[in-house]
Amino acid sequence: MATVPLKDELDIVIPTIRNLDFLEMWRPFFEQYHLIIVQDGDPSKTIKVPDGFDYELYNRNDINKILGPRASCISFKDSACRCFGYMVSKKKYIFTIDDDCFVAKDPSGKDINALEQHIKNLLCPSTPYFFNTLYDPFRDGADFVRGYPFSLREGVSTAVSHGLWLNIPDYDAPTQLVKPLERNTRYVDTVLTIPKGTLFPMCGMNLAFDRDLIGPAMYFGLMGDGQPIGRYDDMWAGWCCKVICDHLGLGIKTGLPYIYHSKASNPFVNLKKEYNGIFWQEEIIPFFQQINLSKESTTVQKCYVEMAKQVNEKLGKIDPYFVKLADAMVTWIEAWDELNPPTKDSAKATNAASK
Amino acid sequence: MATVPLKDELDIVIPTIRNLDFLEMWRPFFEQYHLIIVQDGDPSKTIKVPDGFDYELYNRNDINKILGPRASCISFKDSACRCFGYMVSKKKYIFTIDDDCFVAKDPSGKDINALEQHIKNLLCPSTPYFFNTLYDPFRDGADFVRGYPFSLREGVSTAVSHGLWLNIPDYDAPTQLVKPLERNTRYVDTVLTIPKGTLFPMCGMNLAFDRDLIGPAMYFGLMGDGQPIGRYDDMWAGWCCKVICDHLGLGIKTGLPYIYHSKASNPFVNLKKEYNGIFWQEEIIPFFQQINLSKESTTVQKCYVEMAKQVNEKLGKIDPYFVKLADAMVTWIEAWDELNPPTKDSAKATNAASK
Repeated sequence: MATVPLKDELDIVIPTIRNLDFLEMWRPFFEQYHLIIVQDGDPSKTIKVPDGFDYELYNRNDINKILGPRASCISFKDSACRCFGYMVSKKKYIFTIDDDCFVAKDPSGKDINALEQHIKNLLCPSTPYFFNTLYDPFRDGADFVRGYPFSLREGVSTAVSHGLWLNIPDYDAPTQLVKPLERNTRYVDTVLTIPKGTLFPMCGMNLAFDRDLIGPAMYFGLMGDGQPIGRYDDMWAGWCCKVICDHLGLGIKTGLPYIYHSKASNPFVNLKKEYNGIFWQEEIIPFFQQINLSKESTTVQKCYVEMAKQVNEKLGKIDPYFVKLADAMVTWIEAWDELNPPTKDSAKATNAASK
Repeated sequence: MATVPLKDELDIVIPTIRNLDFLEMWRPFFEQYHLIIVQDGDPSKTIKVPDGFDYELYNRNDINKILGPRASCISFKDSACRCFGYMVSKKKYIFTIDDDCFVAKDPSGKDINALEQHIKNLLCPSTPYFFNTLYDPFRDGADFVRGYPFSLREGVSTAVSHGLWLNIPDYDAPTQLVKPLERNTRYVDTVLTIPKGTLFPMCGMNLAFDRDLIGPAMYFGLMGDGQPIGRYDDMWAGWCCKVICDHLGLGIKTGLPYIYHSKASNPFVNLKKEYNGIFWQEEIIPFFQQINLSKESTTVQKCYVEMAKQVNEKLGKIDPYFVKLADAMVTWIEAWDELNPPTKDSAKATNAASK
């Protein structure tokens, strides 16, 4: 049923500070697609891309030139800068992957085409209103089980596909420190919809989404250089996206595909980046759990701006950082709309989604 | 961490209308436990149990004798009668299994000890308030991922463990009719908590629960002989249990273990039993999704009686059947309390759970 889309429907976004040797391993799967490389850190450094790949590369100077003063919403010295790539893409689908992620193998020893599985996930509906115990009912060999209401079997459009990681699991610094040797070796052969009303920790390492449906909510926040927090870029985007998907009647799936995450980042450095987030998330998550978007917020942009206002009002009390972040959220939407003026098609898609 | 409990902590409840030859296959796993066999249908028929099993057997005459007029709440000519076994048990844990379920094999070809996995599930906490993308964080080789709030990592007590089925999936009659050849061959190596606020279709074929925590809510309703509905006994129990677990802060897990479901029941017969349920569930599920239990309902019994009142008021409008069912729910609790007078320990457990 689901097929890999043609080259002109998907961009691969890669944030990096180094030469992209890791692409060699992905060549059979990525070569036909266009890459958007967002160079993090020193713009004078040259990033080498293996021959044969079709790509555009943006460094900090490019971002400043394209966005002008609005470039302030794009993080510097943090992989959160990747979201600039989502903004400049003109494709329907985005797949983003970290440069320390390699091709994983399934239990039969076969290379996993992560991109193909993400697209399958995005092209099949989600089922956020009721749990199906045999997991994704749209997968071959599965269906809705006895007791699943028939009125809910059409499902809703899938906006986000969250993939997982074999080898190095995506642990926070305290868990990394406590379990330095833990490796994820369990291949769980499933995809499932995260139910409505439930938040999840979205990791940006191996992630795909439908830009038309949810793109403007995929903002990775203010992290890294000059900010009091790091490693919460994808979490922030995940909380915002989940609340907006729930509001607009869109789905988020998690599970397959796996990538092979090769190297744990330094837990001491991570702890320094994370400690504010670890503390703040205890208040941020209840905030997102209780947030209610108004009926007037019928597009992702409107939802996002309404959310920014509430971030300012309610999270601003925790730390002035959230006031700055709320401003950056609004700037992000302004920049998004400038680079992506609404078309008839995108308006139609949003309307359909909000029904 | 989790170990299989001693013989005196668990009963296996089996509803049946035939000789229990299927137990031969389960002998290595079940022989050390006590069986409660609830004989469905004609009480004059003799059910043969293979030698060596320790069991008690109740037929309709026994049920009538033990419960007197309250026996009206126990279904006749339907496997829903199994819940009588939950009531007469005196153990902490119940495992219930259908007599057409055999030992399944894991992908390595090894026999699956379903009971052992259920107990593992029940002894490990659940995490209903936030989704963990690596599934059960308490399993060996897994943990909470980055971004999972630390305040939620203690989890909550697990009340129910819902296992799955290889070979014949648990489909409703329409799906059986449309996909007569579909078999479930996918072994998904995971256990996960059903998030708070999300309902699921609980199947009674391969199910375990903590009687002390949730027993009085495991009522399988009025089905079969003289009733306008069948095959919704476990669904009904699942909806009620989920709402009460959410209210009391208890968890429900689904996934492993698998059993091998040998034979599809007749889809034409099933359709006749199900058609009212298929129709009614479109209103029942929104009812359970919006139900709110009061703060005063601090025990499973109080929750259940409050729920019965709402069933009467709100679902009674759909069909007089629900008025009768609401009465039966109250009768069930009366019968439960008569057979299970509260002890200091059970009061303590309920209080701890409701905190």
